[in-house]
Amino acid sequence: MSAPVAVAGVGTSHFGRQPERDLVGLAYDAVSEAFADAGVENVDAVWVGTVFAPAGVAQRVLRAMGITGVPILTVENACASGTTAFVEAHEAVRTGRYGRVLALGLEQMSTAFSGAIVPETTDPEGRAGLAMPAMYAMSAARYLYTGAATLEQLAAVSVKNHAHAVHNPRAQYSGEYTVDEVLASRMIADPLTLLQCCPTSDGAAAAVLTAASGGSGEVVVRGAALRSGAPWNHRSPHVWGHDIVADTARDALSAAGLDAATDVDVVEVHDAFTIGEIVTTEALGLVPPGDGGKAAAGGVTALGGAHPVNPSGGLLSRGHPLGATGLAQIAEITWQLRGQCGARQVGGARLGLVETMGGGVSVLDGNSCVVTVLEAR
Amino acid sequence: MSAPVAVAGVGTSHFGRQPERDLVGLAYDAVSEAFADAGVENVDAVWVGTVFAPAGVAQRVLRAMGITGVPILTVENACASGTTAFVEAHEAVRTGRYGRVLALGLEQMSTAFSGAIVPETTDPEGRAGLAMPAMYAMSAARYLYTGAATLEQLAAVSVKNHAHAVHNPRAQYSGEYTVDEVLASRMIADPLTLLQCCPTSDGAAAAVLTAASGGSGEVVVRGAALRSGAPWNHRSPHVWGHDIVADTARDALSAAGLDAATDVDVVEVHDAFTIGEIVTTEALGLVPPGDGGKAAAGGVTALGGAHPVNPSGGLLSRGHPLGATGLAQIAEITWQLRGQCGARQVGGARLGLVETMGGGVSVLDGNSCVVTVLEAR
Repeated sequence: MSAPVAVAGVGTSHFGRQPERDLVGLAYDAVSEAFADAGVENVDAVWVGTVFAPAGVAQRVLRAMGITGVPILTVENACASGTTAFVEAHEAVRTGRYGRVLALGLEQMSTAFSGAIVPETTDPEGRAGLAMPAMYAMSAARYLYTGAATLEQLAAVSVKNHAHAVHNPRAQYSGEYTVDEVLASRMIADPLTLLQCCPTSDGAAAAVLTAASGGSGEVVVRGAALRSGAPWNHRSPHVWGHDIVADTARDALSAAGLDAATDVDVVEVHDAFTIGEIVTTEALGLVPPGDGGKAAAGGVTALGGAHPVNPSGGLLSRGHPLGATGLAQIAEITWQLRGQCGARQVGGARLGLVETMGGGVSVLDGNSCVVTVLEAR
Repeated sequence: MSAPVAVAGVGTSHFGRQPERDLVGLAYDAVSEAFADAGVENVDAVWVGTVFAPAGVAQRVLRAMGITGVPILTVENACASGTTAFVEAHEAVRTGRYGRVLALGLEQMSTAFSGAIVPETTDPEGRAGLAMPAMYAMSAARYLYTGAATLEQLAAVSVKNHAHAVHNPRAQYSGEYTVDEVLASRMIADPLTLLQCCPTSDGAAAAVLTAASGGSGEVVVRGAALRSGAPWNHRSPHVWGHDIVADTARDALSAAGLDAATDVDVVEVHDAFTIGEIVTTEALGLVPPGDGGKAAAGGVTALGGAHPVNPSGGLLSRGHPLGATGLAQIAEITWQLRGQCGARQVGGARLGLVETMGGGVSVLDGNSCVVTVLEAR
């Protein structure tokens, strides 16, 4: 049993469409906040997670803030790139490889593409137009076909997360929407309307990891797991992405010594699209199979409910700068476990969970999934 | 002291300009050879190193050969991406995180760019046209200015490495050139002529790492180190890139319990340009400061010399598919330590060293450097 690893500090830039900014400035905002939060001025190594930033970006943005001469590694793991950087930083501290490690995630989606992400044309799926909204839309259609949820319950996830984000000044979007308004917003990929899809976002998020000091209230990593996808079994009773989340969650909960995700007080999950949150709450075991839609509509996963999910507003509202997302989730759970979340605080939260899922290519059940359990000591 | 990690198997694709192939096929060639060499059919985790391959490429190429459902992490560390994947795989086995790990490097330069790599336009250096050939040319000019070497000695590196490659059927280019022919080839970035610059290459290379079995002749990792660059000190007596190589080599030799690189029998270094090999042989301490050019011209670093460097032909001749390069170096040293190199074999080699340097941006002394010491037990 190695010494526990602490999340000593976290920080994020503003999340939003910020084409006038650059990655250097976004990273500066996140890292300087995380350093100040941790009370440190340097680190022994850095893992950077990004998907579409140009090669060499890590050294460039870190040099601009004087972080040079320490090992810097850039990791790409689709939408789980930020939490992959976190898991690698955690492993480095856990094994004593480095004493104090920065995990940084960043992405500027508004300038990386003219429009949406272009599907990879060497894939049959890409050539067929199976971009991420289409992929999730097919999941949603399949899920609705089973009768486990209604269109209105799907939309309820968006209503809930936008309402949560009203209390999060860092969120890209927020608002008190009705189910009808969500369903009436522009259709993106049937049945997913605009308000059921994460926006185009720019941002950075960071965490400083160190060996735990043993102080009261310190946030520590209780368990972490990373998986990549097996081939998607089209005959599975579960929709796309369910199985990799369930398997990774099992690994992480086991590493954390917990029986079930229901033991956790607050959760941030990868709701890139509304169907994602429904599937994930079930895959994690937060709600019974088939109850994800009902739970969202019935307040079970809302602030004040039995199992609050995405108090930050989630990807749907806080925004989704790919590489930054996982570390923004880590930051939210860290703030929740410290009781720093104001009107969106989950009262008395001591255990939190983060789930990030990287999108799938080539009929994989997701490229990657990371689940982490944090605890306030 | 943890158990030693063995390089159980290595493999590479053909290296060369292969625009008609794709990354899936190149990776298949490298991984299937490495698996057969190691006598394995699967691994517990994979690290993939690449610089310019599209996001998600790791999962895509691995799925095509049935490697799914195990953790897959993609790392980018400029030209040291392949050896960064190797170092991470080594660390995972060393710490017991995973039992058997694949490190895979790949790059298809011929289709990634229409011409040379475009310098990053957000850098002052990039806007000034400081592409990699220009960067190395400035180092060469500075080095020649000190009087430590002549143009002819610079060219001698190319003569030597192309001659070595005559005995390497996997090399992209080879030939018995004269110094005059090298100097008379087309000028790319003064004073570096075409034959002093690595070619545009496509390829993949792979290694399987496991806990050492203790068998006789087994190749094990005796030490490994990774650094990223500090700001380049323009007033240093050394040219660009010297200090990061020297520092990383010191770390790796210390980890290997060796006093000096001269204790090593065979070396593969990052000769993306001729000046790179000269600087690196000095930075490693293989030859005295200022003797790099003389050593190349005098046969010291040739096959049959006191300190053979780049028996494979190096990047100049074997080719330089960025992410694959470091693992091709690992493969060459592994074959050398097993005595499998035929006419390019360094007789009785028991200790080998690999050095890979990732190019610099934003006035860093290199983005990254990896040095690894391998030993035949």
